[in-house]
Amino acid sequence: MRKLLEEVRGGSIGIDEAAERLARLPYEDLTFARVDHHRDIRLGFPEVVLGQGKTVQQITAIAERILAGGSNLIVSRTNEDAYHSILNLAPEAQFHAEPRMVTVCRDLTIRGEGSISVVSAGTSDIPVAEEAAVTAEVMGNRVARIYDVGVAGIHRLFGERAGFQSASVVIVVAGMEGALPSVVGGLVSVPVIAVPTSVGYGASFDGLAALLGMLNSCASNVTVVNIDNGFGAGFVASLINRKPEAQG
Amino acid sequence: MRKLLEEVRGGSIGIDEAAERLARLPYEDLTFARVDHHRDIRLGFPEVVLGQGKTVQQITAIAERILAGGSNLIVSRTNEDAYHSILNLAPEAQFHAEPRMVTVCRDLTIRGEGSISVVSAGTSDIPVAEEAAVTAEVMGNRVARIYDVGVAGIHRLFGERAGFQSASVVIVVAGMEGALPSVVGGLVSVPVIAVPTSVGYGASFDGLAALLGMLNSCASNVTVVNIDNGFGAGFVASLINRKPEAQG
Amino acid sequence: MRKLLEEVRGGSIGIDEAAERLARLPYEDLTFARVDHHRDIRLGFPEVVLGQGKTVQQITAIAERILAGGSNLIVSRTNEDAYHSILNLAPEAQFHAEPRMVTVCRDLTIRGEGSISVVSAGTSDIPVAEEAAVTAEVMGNRVARIYDVGVAGIHRLFGERAGFQSASVVIVVAGMEGALPSVVGGLVSVPVIAVPTSVGYGASFDGLAALLGMLNSCASNVTVVNIDNGFGAGFVASLINRKPEAQG
Amino acid sequence: MRKLLEEVRGGSIGIDEAAERLARLPYEDLTFARVDHHRDIRLGFPEVVLGQGKTVQQITAIAERILAGGSNLIVSRTNEDAYHSILNLAPEAQFHAEPRMVTVCRDLTIRGEGSISVVSAGTSDIPVAEEAAVTAEVMGNRVARIYDVGVAGIHRLFGERAGFQSASVVIVVAGMEGALPSVVGGLVSVPVIAVPTSVGYGASFDGLAALLGMLNSCASNVTVVNIDNGFGAGFVASLINRKPEAQG
Amino acid sequence: MRKLLEEVRGGSIGIDEAAERLARLPYEDLTFARVDHHRDIRLGFPEVVLGQGKTVQQITAIAERILAGGSNLIVSRTNEDAYHSILNLAPEAQFHAEPRMVTVCRDLTIRGEGSISVVSAGTSDIPVAEEAAVTAEVMGNRVARIYDVGVAGIHRLFGERAGFQSASVVIVVAGMEGALPSVVGGLVSVPVIAVPTSVGYGASFDGLAALLGMLNSCASNVTVVNIDNGFGAGFVASLINRKPEAQG
Amino acid sequence: MRKLLEEVRGGSIGIDEAAERLARLPYEDLTFARVDHHRDIRLGFPEVVLGQGKTVQQITAIAERILAGGSNLIVSRTNEDAYHSILNLAPEAQFHAEPRMVTVCRDLTIRGEGSISVVSAGTSDIPVAEEAAVTAEVMGNRVARIYDVGVAGIHRLFGERAGFQSASVVIVVAGMEGALPSVVGGLVSVPVIAVPTSVGYGASFDGLAALLGMLNSCASNVTVVNIDNGFGAGFVASLINRKPEAQG
Amino acid sequence: MRKLLEEVRGGSIGIDEAAERLARLPYEDLTFARVDHHRDIRLGFPEVVLGQGKTVQQITAIAERILAGGSNLIVSRTNEDAYHSILNLAPEAQFHAEPRMVTVCRDLTIRGEGSISVVSAGTSDIPVAEEAAVTAEVMGNRVARIYDVGVAGIHRLFGERAGFQSASVVIVVAGMEGALPSVVGGLVSVPVIAVPTSVGYGASFDGLAALLGMLNSCASNVTVVNIDNGFGAGFVASLINRKPEAQG
Amino acid sequence: MRKLLEEVRGGSIGIDEAAERLARLPYEDLTFARVDHHRDIRLGFPEVVLGQGKTVQQITAIAERILAGGSNLIVSRTNEDAYHSILNLAPEAQFHAEPRMVTVCRDLTIRGEGSISVVSAGTSDIPVAEEAAVTAEVMGNRVARIYDVGVAGIHRLFGERAGFQSASVVIVVAGMEGALPSVVGGLVSVPVIAVPTSVGYGASFDGLAALLGMLNSCASNVTVVNIDNGFGAGFVASLINRKPEAQG
Repeated sequence: MRKLLEEVRGGSIGIDEAAERLARLPYEDLTFARVDHHRDIRLGFPEVVLGQGKTVQQITAIAERILAGGSNLIVSRTNEDAYHSILNLAPEAQFHAEPRMVTVCRDLTIRGEGSISVVSAGTSDIPVAEEAAVTAEVMGNRVARIYDVGVAGIHRLFGERAGFQSASVVIVVAGMEGALPSVVGGLVSVPVIAVPTSVGYGASFDGLAALLGMLNSCASNVTVVNIDNGFGAGFVASLINRKPEAQG
Repeated sequence: MRKLLEEVRGGSIGIDEAAERLARLPYEDLTFARVDHHRDIRLGFPEVVLGQGKTVQQITAIAERILAGGSNLIVSRTNEDAYHSILNLAPEAQFHAEPRMVTVCRDLTIRGEGSISVVSAGTSDIPVAEEAAVTAEVMGNRVARIYDVGVAGIHRLFGERAGFQSASVVIVVAGMEGALPSVVGGLVSVPVIAVPTSVGYGASFDGLAALLGMLNSCASNVTVVNIDNGFGAGFVASLINRKPEAQG
Repeated sequence: MRKLLEEVRGGSIGIDEAAERLARLPYEDLTFARVDHHRDIRLGFPEVVLGQGKTVQQITAIAERILAGGSNLIVSRTNEDAYHSILNLAPEAQFHAEPRMVTVCRDLTIRGEGSISVVSAGTSDIPVAEEAAVTAEVMGNRVARIYDVGVAGIHRLFGERAGFQSASVVIVVAGMEGALPSVVGGLVSVPVIAVPTSVGYGASFDGLAALLGMLNSCASNVTVVNIDNGFGAGFVASLINRKPEAQG
Repeated sequence: MRKLLEEVRGGSIGIDEAAERLARLPYEDLTFARVDHHRDIRLGFPEVVLGQGKTVQQITAIAERILAGGSNLIVSRTNEDAYHSILNLAPEAQFHAEPRMVTVCRDLTIRGEGSISVVSAGTSDIPVAEEAAVTAEVMGNRVARIYDVGVAGIHRLFGERAGFQSASVVIVVAGMEGALPSVVGGLVSVPVIAVPTSVGYGASFDGLAALLGMLNSCASNVTVVNIDNGFGAGFVASLINRKPEAQG
Repeated sequence: MRKLLEEVRGGSIGIDEAAERLARLPYEDLTFARVDHHRDIRLGFPEVVLGQGKTVQQITAIAERILAGGSNLIVSRTNEDAYHSILNLAPEAQFHAEPRMVTVCRDLTIRGEGSISVVSAGTSDIPVAEEAAVTAEVMGNRVARIYDVGVAGIHRLFGERAGFQSASVVIVVAGMEGALPSVVGGLVSVPVIAVPTSVGYGASFDGLAALLGMLNSCASNVTVVNIDNGFGAGFVASLINRKPEAQG
Repeated sequence: MRKLLEEVRGGSIGIDEAAERLARLPYEDLTFARVDHHRDIRLGFPEVVLGQGKTVQQITAIAERILAGGSNLIVSRTNEDAYHSILNLAPEAQFHAEPRMVTVCRDLTIRGEGSISVVSAGTSDIPVAEEAAVTAEVMGNRVARIYDVGVAGIHRLFGERAGFQSASVVIVVAGMEGALPSVVGGLVSVPVIAVPTSVGYGASFDGLAALLGMLNSCASNVTVVNIDNGFGAGFVASLINRKPEAQG
Repeated sequence: MRKLLEEVRGGSIGIDEAAERLARLPYEDLTFARVDHHRDIRLGFPEVVLGQGKTVQQITAIAERILAGGSNLIVSRTNEDAYHSILNLAPEAQFHAEPRMVTVCRDLTIRGEGSISVVSAGTSDIPVAEEAAVTAEVMGNRVARIYDVGVAGIHRLFGERAGFQSASVVIVVAGMEGALPSVVGGLVSVPVIAVPTSVGYGASFDGLAALLGMLNSCASNVTVVNIDNGFGAGFVASLINRKPEAQG
Repeated sequence: MRKLLEEVRGGSIGIDEAAERLARLPYEDLTFARVDHHRDIRLGFPEVVLGQGKTVQQITAIAERILAGGSNLIVSRTNEDAYHSILNLAPEAQFHAEPRMVTVCRDLTIRGEGSISVVSAGTSDIPVAEEAAVTAEVMGNRVARIYDVGVAGIHRLFGERAGFQSASVVIVVAGMEGALPSVVGGLVSVPVIAVPTSVGYGASFDGLAALLGMLNSCASNVTVVNIDNGFGAGFVASLINRKPEAQG
């Protein structure tokens, strides 16, 4: 754009032509500007590839391009084959079996001000909880995992209270009745991100019961993401926990 | 039936005719027998009139017939007009404004072995909770009311723990996310009857969220009744709490 | 807690420190107290492992820990592999093929006052009915099984009436239209626990039709558990049927 | 059409013109033919006006045209105002308060071979049951009404068995869990038409529970009409019960 | 019962004992009476086994018992293995590949007064249509099949009009939008039984769209059975079409 | 933008400042440009105000601003009060009682190439059909109305065939089972826009049945708009029917 | 029909017989006439076979008959086996791997006036987008593909704006939240056909979320087809884009 | 607790008694402690009363108690009567007509680090947007309102970009298709809280369409609250935006 303006001033192109060019390309410029402008803000953001529905070849190709850029990489909902293929590109790649994620973590700077707690109800909820926890870690946060503390055994949750009452953000992962976020929400004064899971059977309707339960939470500090969306929860929690200086 | 058999023995009616008569009327007999046989078991059961969709005239007419029989009377989902009309029939009739019930309690025998606790989450759930509590009282139970102890303020529930941990049955009434029965269920070793209410808005879908939450409870001692069905919960709790000798 | 108080009295720790310690650990104490307090009440309760979503290794490890504690064991929704693995730990382990359960029943005391009847509508409902029946047996109850008595052949149900009218609690298992609990509920004066099953096709919507039917039952003594939740029904029925001294 | 063909033969119109005319008007002809052809088959069919959403003026105007044709008239889902207006046209008009219908029954021929039984579960289902019963009567059938025989009091249904086991078709009307058609279906060998009603609350979801229950009936002789569609049930039952000679 | 009465008259048993015995066994008697009474009415009814969820062994065992009784046999939702096993019991057994049914048709009497037409919308609906057609044939009806006449090509339906306008009952099978029963219903004056199928994708929601469409049919002569329930439609159509003398 | 470029060339503002200004305001420019660029294309488009949820004052204020601009005006889902208020601004305003619309039609140019047919199933669907028809008229189209031609009386639809087979676009409005668009779709070779209405009761679920029916239409030329969205259908039909030269 | 009329005129058949023949066959005639009349209009329409649920043999047989007729062929939702089989019949057959279609394109005439743009949100939506694009191409349209321009990266959509703002019709394919059609709808003045896809997880409920989003679009130029129905969108878009002279 | 410990040390109460007291009252202590401990963290939190379902008397009584405590007060979903009643208690009370809220704002400290933007799609969404905005203001935040920027007019949203790209948190309120949060989410790098509203008709199903759309957002920084829950969104946004020092 600058160059164009200089040519306008220099008279090498007429005003009409300049106006037309500007009219035709603003979005490319905008796009460029936007990325540029956001460079600092986005500092430390990982690039994310949703593995679901992509071939190992496709994933590897995208990963290669991203790794060339130098940022951290998350491949979610993938498998060990993709991991081995990415390992060729980045020997520091890790496979997380439970959430079926591949991560490449080159930038280990801590960018979170406080810590993020990930609380989950049952053992079957752990894959989703791990997706959230690993995402938050790759995004530069200290993460505390507090698993298997369902509401029907409330004393265990209380025993682990210290682990989440000091956090800056709490992610709560639960299937079945989805009651845990309300209880946790009442015990902390920070934002709680609720992740319903598709764990359950019968009238759980693949996570619908948990989802509705969380949306109707009587704790005012609870917001909700999609069923099984551990990545989203980890991502938003990282945004909330971000140090002001990390925001650029 | 006895009379018929005596006539058979006496020869005043033939076997063919007797067989035919028995074939034609077994159900009436059965019906009679059943009621008779159950007289003891059902001792102390109130007669119940669902007021919803009935005129004051209809309710009064049914109430009159029941009161003649001497048992306790419950009219649910009714209004003050019906109350005034029943008052003419039974001066001891009471109107319960919150659950909109009329009761006539002539038999005050305590038939419950232990006590029944009615726990509710929010103030808006109280009408349904009262429907359960009043039903249980009319059926001869000691009832403890523990209201306004939602899961988002779990410490209040804990502060009231003594009130329900000594009960023989616990009724838990909750709208919104319906999480309370799971938490209470984990704190007691007795049956918990969960009553979802239609309290809430948006994604509560008139009690569906609470209903699904309760059906998916991770506490194994929880069963569920229909949305807003306080009467049913009070009724079943009374059956569970019944003294063996009260069963006849 | 006592020890701490003694140290306070003895002066070996200061009040500040004592207050701080008490502030930090109340829940662990509580937890401990609670388990302790419940020891008697919970006498005879089996430990339960939900097999669904766990590996044979995980199941075996949990089973081993439980069996060391001496209580009865139920593994639900599991398979024959898990059974063989548990057999190494407990030669008295049994595999129940229809409900796919493994049980280890070391304590054979009868703890139920009366008997529990399990009534089911169709042959396809039997696995869920058996899950309820086996659970109730392992929890020390006499169980009567009355299967294949659907409402469209009501005379068969009537022919088997004796089998459930003497029970203290009746569990009714049905798929399709879920009408059986209402009919049975009208024939008995005790609590009825309805279990909808996912048996059916088309507009049964995996048990939703049966579930809704049961929640809307016109019989007041019916409560409902989740679709296919035979275990829950057997568990609650056992709590209801429990001898007072067994609660002790 | 004949006339046209005669003109073709007589040469008064050419083949081209005849072909074009035939091409243009077949549907009008068809329409006419069809009505004509059906005159006998439809003998005794009432004309029906759905009152819902129409003004008294509109209803009266339509009724006037129909009454001129001489057939019986049914106005469904209407009110007393429409009745008074129709009374001016036909002094024999009747208002049926419960189903909110106006009927004018000029042709009283019995056209049904056997009788039609209308069985209903609760008192609140009576308006829909009456809509079915009145429709069947206006269509020339003997109708037996058997009301208030819900499945939770199965002995009452059995006591009334004689009333429906002799019918040629049975209409069963029920709200709440919608279990009655399955029970009745198992007791008769004739077609059963099930009508779910919107009676109920909470998880009845305005008749959905009853509808699903009936669609999943385990009795093979049950078919279903829309929620609250008493008219449809009475209409189809009349078709089934029709004497062969009445068909035409 | 007669024998008991004779003993009463003969004095070999007392009245008390007789009354008690009668009280205990009425249902068995009833059961017997009912079967007996229905023997004639049910003449020509096939015995039906729902193959779904049963092993070949179970199916064969049930089939053997039924075939001993001499009536026609239908095994629905089964496979070729079951067919081969039944072939050993009954060489006249037939396998119908599209509806996956096995039939043994020993009684070939025509019991239907008129004929039954089975109309279907698309080729994918044919298995369900055949289930209806074969059922009706085994129950002694003449059946006309009119397939592949969907509403989007209404002229084909009209071309085949003769095939269903002469029937006594019409079964209409359709997936997707389920519009065909309404159109056919408007063209005939006899009962129409609509069968929604699970054919379709996306917003057909496994037959829900077709089911709702049929329940809301603007043709008054339409009733509906469960999604994919060809057997039920064939069964009810046979009941409607039954000759009076065939009803016994 | 031009002015800015001229100032750049003239040197009255520097390149840095120009770049910054361009960076800050592109969207305003874009906005302006877009409106301008679209002026011709949008020629003859009415301005539309959704009356629902707006006060008469709000509607009048918006209408005044629009009328100043000279284009045609549509106020949908409004009432007679708004009409009288607008009448003060524009004496040619018209009130359409059935669809509850106010229109001011100043530009009467015919912009549609062919004609648009609006076909509706029942009399209760007419308000929605009229909303579509009036919208299309105000947008400069010839509109043919073919009402009350439901699929259960298919001969009436056929009799009116001429009315829609010559159209360039057909709008089909239907409630209940929503079958009409499929039948019409099969009879024409042009795009069909289906509008489900909330007309019906019971399992119509406020238009859901009709909506699903239309989405699953077996006619490939059918697309669907929201329930009761007559305006949207009329709008899209007008776009499709637009003369090329009217597109500017 | 002409021949019949000539025979009438010639007297070789009588008027009665002629009338009877006409009465019996009008629909066949009609059918023929209709096809004939539409020959021109339908010029260039491909014949379409829905492969889903058909065997390779069935598909090949239908394809052979169609190819004999000379029009273009589309087989949708099929596989490579069917392709190889059709290749024997038509060496110019093509397999489109992403949308799993086989096409035989013998008539390459451009029949569309303008161009059709196919816009899709994510890479997983491409198979459905390709089904739409290939359909439109086989029907003689110029097609612009603009893929991977989801609303969360709105600048990419803007960068590609030129690609769809010049189109005559825009097809927008999106899963997940289905927001893209509203945004695109606001940027163009032509009809937009929205195709929801079943891409997503959790609360996408197999495309329901996207479908509802599109039906509620705040852009008035959007209509919707069934979930994953790329073919339908391509078909309707082709009808809209058709040159007047191509309509015959 | 301290006092008790001192008494223990002083010997004025025995260890047994102390232990018993501690055992009996830990929750009250806990409760007290918790409130106390949170005093700083919760600094500036308003007390909130949900007006829905409460009488003016009840609201006033609660408000009086809260105002005595000195914190800010929010009464949501209330009316002008409640406002006038509260005005007697607090002359600085304000009524917000659109969101129907009463606020008393005594503590005007700015506690938010950055600003909160509230973006809404249509004018009908403003009441919910205002509920969010007012809540955030009472909690000490600078709030920017950007209303009426729906996705179908994306250029208006872009024109207002500056208003939300500088915020620390963005609340996006939208009904109908709920697409706005995805678009906004893609334009900012901070957390976005999406609030679906019940604005719309037909297939919006009272906000369900918007809710599902937002849960399936393709922007990773979006979380969701219940339909119409503006208060919850404002509350969570305030927590996120809180200055570290404001946390205590």
